[in-house]
Amino acid sequence: MENFVFYSPTCFVFGKDAESQVGAMVRRFGGSKVLIHYGGGSALRSGLIDRVKASLEAEGIPFLLLGGVQPNPRSGLVYEGIELCRNEKIDFILAVGGGSVIDSSKAIAAGTVYDGDFWDFYSGKRIEEALPVGTVLTIAAAGSEGSPDSVITREDGMFKRGASGDAIRPRFSVLNPALTQTLPPFQTAAGITDIMAHLYERYLTNSKEVEVTDRMIEALLLTMIHEGPRVIADPNNYEARANIMWAGMMAHNNSCGVGRSQDWNSHNIEHELSALYDCAHGAGLAVTMPAVFTYVMQHDVMRFAKAAVRVWGCQMDFDHPEVTARAGIEALRNFLISIGMPKNFAELGAKKEDIPTLVQALCRGDGRMGTISGFVTLNEEDCTKIYEMMV
Amino acid sequence: MENFVFYSPTCFVFGKDAESQVGAMVRRFGGSKVLIHYGGGSALRSGLIDRVKASLEAEGIPFLLLGGVQPNPRSGLVYEGIELCRNEKIDFILAVGGGSVIDSSKAIAAGTVYDGDFWDFYSGKRIEEALPVGTVLTIAAAGSEGSPDSVITREDGMFKRGASGDAIRPRFSVLNPALTQTLPPFQTAAGITDIMAHLYERYLTNSKEVEVTDRMIEALLLTMIHEGPRVIADPNNYEARANIMWAGMMAHNNSCGVGRSQDWNSHNIEHELSALYDCAHGAGLAVTMPAVFTYVMQHDVMRFAKAAVRVWGCQMDFDHPEVTARAGIEALRNFLISIGMPKNFAELGAKKEDIPTLVQALCRGDGRMGTISGFVTLNEEDCTKIYEMMV
Repeated sequence: MENFVFYSPTCFVFGKDAESQVGAMVRRFGGSKVLIHYGGGSALRSGLIDRVKASLEAEGIPFLLLGGVQPNPRSGLVYEGIELCRNEKIDFILAVGGGSVIDSSKAIAAGTVYDGDFWDFYSGKRIEEALPVGTVLTIAAAGSEGSPDSVITREDGMFKRGASGDAIRPRFSVLNPALTQTLPPFQTAAGITDIMAHLYERYLTNSKEVEVTDRMIEALLLTMIHEGPRVIADPNNYEARANIMWAGMMAHNNSCGVGRSQDWNSHNIEHELSALYDCAHGAGLAVTMPAVFTYVMQHDVMRFAKAAVRVWGCQMDFDHPEVTARAGIEALRNFLISIGMPKNFAELGAKKEDIPTLVQALCRGDGRMGTISGFVTLNEEDCTKIYEMMV
Repeated sequence: MENFVFYSPTCFVFGKDAESQVGAMVRRFGGSKVLIHYGGGSALRSGLIDRVKASLEAEGIPFLLLGGVQPNPRSGLVYEGIELCRNEKIDFILAVGGGSVIDSSKAIAAGTVYDGDFWDFYSGKRIEEALPVGTVLTIAAAGSEGSPDSVITREDGMFKRGASGDAIRPRFSVLNPALTQTLPPFQTAAGITDIMAHLYERYLTNSKEVEVTDRMIEALLLTMIHEGPRVIADPNNYEARANIMWAGMMAHNNSCGVGRSQDWNSHNIEHELSALYDCAHGAGLAVTMPAVFTYVMQHDVMRFAKAAVRVWGCQMDFDHPEVTARAGIEALRNFLISIGMPKNFAELGAKKEDIPTLVQALCRGDGRMGTISGFVTLNEEDCTKIYEMMV
């Protein structure tokens, strides 16, 4: 196991009606003037924003509203938020929404207290300081409610990049599984896929003898396999929603990723898809993962066989471990299709003729020198073949 | 899943030579005058205390030393520590040792800033305020390095009681698996048993449909089953030590225990044994757990069958689930014996004729009204039978 530091000082308030505690939590974590940042109309229509406002009002905490965060959140709104926070002397950002809203909030939080262009953080600079952020989560997916990460899409060129730093870990996150019951099945399934991808990206490691984190990742994948179909069959199944919501946080706060190298090639390869086509990140991952895994499988057949046996219940073929490894990848693909995810470029709305554009953005964007690295280092030819496998 | 709040703001510094960062961590978390609290001579002889002192000196942080913590730490030394901290205006407690040292440090931290008798906290009063505590862990066992809990033994009557509160969660914990390599095999095995007990106490729940935490607990148990024999066979196996150390923390910081009722009857029944005979807590648990589980098995046969199949690899007997349930308990018992733990009163040094005394202390001590409650509520007759099963 490699040396590491793990620090996850987010306070999670979990359960029915948990959003009624938002005001008290903002007070506890030192907020005196709040920006409520949110997405489209659903948070308004459902009454959630009203309940959040009431909770802040009950504590006598003033607030402003900034809505309009899109899926694959854009840098334009971040700049707008930063200006608003500076002008209005906001000292706490409250994200009410999913991963996009939280990521946009984190970017605003870091940018407000930074002299330069906030995009510096999305070009490799580590975030050391930020306004405190709290969240009220409305979809189990991105894990941003418990992570030090944020991903933003830049409009000039439509590319997605990530930033990181303990300063943007939420001070608190309110997780009420009932809030996710109104999600359309496709969004629920895309969230499930994103969570599973966060687990696979950590599972694919070159570190040896990391049994404790292997087992934890497998445990969370098994949870998704058990609860995913239950929640697709019955969107109002609170218990299944609750299990998925906690698994989604645990999958990405990195307690199961410490001390081991991680992959993230599937995420990088997918980011170009959702940036170019504005598709759901989880849907893009459903198409990307099986292709990437099949392409890199030979790098460590036994690792894929392990996932196949322990997670997917495949029988081990001791004479031909690669058969088992492949069966595990097929089981993943079939599971994702079964919950309603796309299986190829056509279903995703992607086009074969764009592959050179995707590869260029992926391997040459933002100062990259022709490769992406993770479990396996992939060059432009590798990435081209992987995208072609998705067609 | 039940509503919960989970807040674990401990910074974990994990890996080889991690203790060299102690000074910087004390500085980061605001300590300006430190009490180094430790146990017997091994931390001195090994040079660990010297390395910790050097790290504090490098940061220019003054410190005092208070050694002598015994296993099953005593209230007498806590009173002494509290007086020392008040007189010397200590503002940070650094525990260098195992669970006993950490628990004693937590008691001192809470007692120093409290007007009354610190034992109030061990009689039911919640700890709301305490000096900050940091730890340098030397045995993977108690999980106190990441928990809000402390257990102290009172000399007048020799009984053990626990206290709890977020204020005594360590601000940081330094986890260097190499520090545990010099432990005698018996202590290593007792630590493994304690970790497994922390998992079983959470597994035995009356909450329904808590798959995510079930799976996480199973994952950590599977890790212990894999790594336990490896570390007993080769005490210098750093990788096995590392996996056990992280599992030990995860087993007890409660991320796998949230949203579900828990048991803790085995711990309560054992506490009277280690209080009366001063035996190792883990060794007491090895004798206690199989007896308790066999006694309460009928309360939820399927839960024990689940552990048997998922954790111990037993075949499910679908016609007779109780056969599978029992096989899982036997597998646990045999595993604990295989790593060198005692299996009965005689091996533990306990006496049958003391059972009335044990039951009296257990069911009537500290204001209890004749029962203890957890997975199943147990009265004096139940507890008598359970102790008799251990003979």
